[in-house]
Amino acid sequence: MYRKEIRIVDCTVRDGGLMNNWQFSDDFVKSVYQANLQAGVDYMEIGYKSSEKAYSRSENGDWKFCDEKDLRRIVGNNDSKLKLSALIDIGRIELDQIKPKKDSVLDMIRVACYVHQMDKAIYHAEHCLDKGYEVTINLMAVSKVNEHDLDEALQDVSRSRVPVFYLVDSFGNMYCEHIQELVRKYRAAMPDKTIGIHAHNNMQLAFSNTVTAIIEGCNMLDSTFLGLGRGAGNCPTELLISFLKNPKYRLLPVLESIQQHVLSLQETIDWGYHIPYMITGALNEHPKVAMEWMDSTRKNDFVSFLRSMHDKELLE
Amino acid sequence: MYRKEIRIVDCTVRDGGLMNNWQFSDDFVKSVYQANLQAGVDYMEIGYKSSEKAYSRSENGDWKFCDEKDLRRIVGNNDSKLKLSALIDIGRIELDQIKPKKDSVLDMIRVACYVHQMDKAIYHAEHCLDKGYEVTINLMAVSKVNEHDLDEALQDVSRSRVPVFYLVDSFGNMYCEHIQELVRKYRAAMPDKTIGIHAHNNMQLAFSNTVTAIIEGCNMLDSTFLGLGRGAGNCPTELLISFLKNPKYRLLPVLESIQQHVLSLQETIDWGYHIPYMITGALNEHPKVAMEWMDSTRKNDFVSFLRSMHDKELLE
Repeated sequence: MYRKEIRIVDCTVRDGGLMNNWQFSDDFVKSVYQANLQAGVDYMEIGYKSSEKAYSRSENGDWKFCDEKDLRRIVGNNDSKLKLSALIDIGRIELDQIKPKKDSVLDMIRVACYVHQMDKAIYHAEHCLDKGYEVTINLMAVSKVNEHDLDEALQDVSRSRVPVFYLVDSFGNMYCEHIQELVRKYRAAMPDKTIGIHAHNNMQLAFSNTVTAIIEGCNMLDSTFLGLGRGAGNCPTELLISFLKNPKYRLLPVLESIQQHVLSLQETIDWGYHIPYMITGALNEHPKVAMEWMDSTRKNDFVSFLRSMHDKELLE
Repeated sequence: MYRKEIRIVDCTVRDGGLMNNWQFSDDFVKSVYQANLQAGVDYMEIGYKSSEKAYSRSENGDWKFCDEKDLRRIVGNNDSKLKLSALIDIGRIELDQIKPKKDSVLDMIRVACYVHQMDKAIYHAEHCLDKGYEVTINLMAVSKVNEHDLDEALQDVSRSRVPVFYLVDSFGNMYCEHIQELVRKYRAAMPDKTIGIHAHNNMQLAFSNTVTAIIEGCNMLDSTFLGLGRGAGNCPTELLISFLKNPKYRLLPVLESIQQHVLSLQETIDWGYHIPYMITGALNEHPKVAMEWMDSTRKNDFVSFLRSMHDKELLE
């Protein structure tokens, strides 16, 4: 599947940090950065830009905030082809905290939003665009959005100056036919814009849904090393690179970083395919209840977890 | 995706046994049997029928042989709706060891073969058909078969009395477009026969490939509890049931058995998504080299594993 427009956005640190409050060592972040550089990955999303009024420094590591000095501690001036990205959440950042692009090593700001926040998301994204950044809007939890609201949101984005719009399966609820229909809908609504895909692996479908999205014309592809990410995690970067076979990408640097830095995190962080995440995915629910269950002493009592769910009769 | 013709064939004990030489406790096998019964699963493949001239009793548990007395120790006379299946390998069984159906609790004999064994496979399958069993032919490793040989094999099967033919992705190498093309080819070659799918999870595609096969008209679906099976394992039964939402299936009994009996096997058996299995899948190689690597002290040194592979330049 050779298509020169394809871009990989590695989100290992940003999405993985949702599992450990971004308490990564500098060695870890440097390893992921160097591996992405060597592997020819196009973008690395290194964390969130957030306000310290919204999140405490004592509970969250540096990559929840992405201060310029912390970024430069890892990447220097980033004189490389690898572009750096940060995600912002509506209401969790003041826009005056985002420096003009000329004063930052960040290249791209992505704006995450729920459907009712689309007006604000477009305002935020165009603000960052005017500051010199590449921007995207990532509409989360689309599996919960009704068609009327979605159509209105797509129309708003289509009229904006935002060049990239993301399909985000936050709950890991979607399978190939959902992805196919939504990518077609997104492309029809905004034929001149780039469509991205961010998938979660609750039902072991993150990689395959990304492949379906590629076939349907998505060109910005989110992934993480060994799938590290919230709950069941994401589309694994190593699978994506081995699938694309694009000569600009190399697998070995990614495997080296996984071997040296990511694999050992499995001893303390329960990401990946676990039954509680599968249950929330199948029920189209936010993974937070499954994450709380996995953090409890009852993590392997998933029969009780299913019985505790409001919509359990859908599955029982 | 409601289709009354759909049948689930749970292979937990048969395929899982490839990872521990079928050294399962009776409690384990009984739990899987009872769970399949309660869950409304259509078939349970409980093991292989093999000759003791081909495999030793000291190295392999009872489910490598499926003697009638051992089967009845677990299922009694199996006065239930759950049908029982055993797999045979060409050359590893003498046909006179297979009793007439009236003297066995087995309902179905599946014949596994490589493409060059198709004549023998048809002979074996029709022999078992004549003894009163349901039969299938499962053509293994189809990702290695060239089109001429495949077309000839399909033509031979189409002319036989064998009613079910399986697409088997033994190496976990295929993705949705491969599955789509092959199911269409199989259905075109034998429009009156049932097509089955048996997928492996090397690239996290076993479930999604099974979904693609369903969409393309496959009606016999192999799966295992928690994906337990050779190497990266299989399509998880729990995902398949939650996807199908067919009222004849229930998820909870499967989760109960996983919780009580399958999960703890993870402490001693390395099935599931591991990088060495991913590498053999991506390279379209038999998983046995990855399984040997996973059994060694170097299991987590997958960079060296990739470098040891003959076709490594495809991925490096």
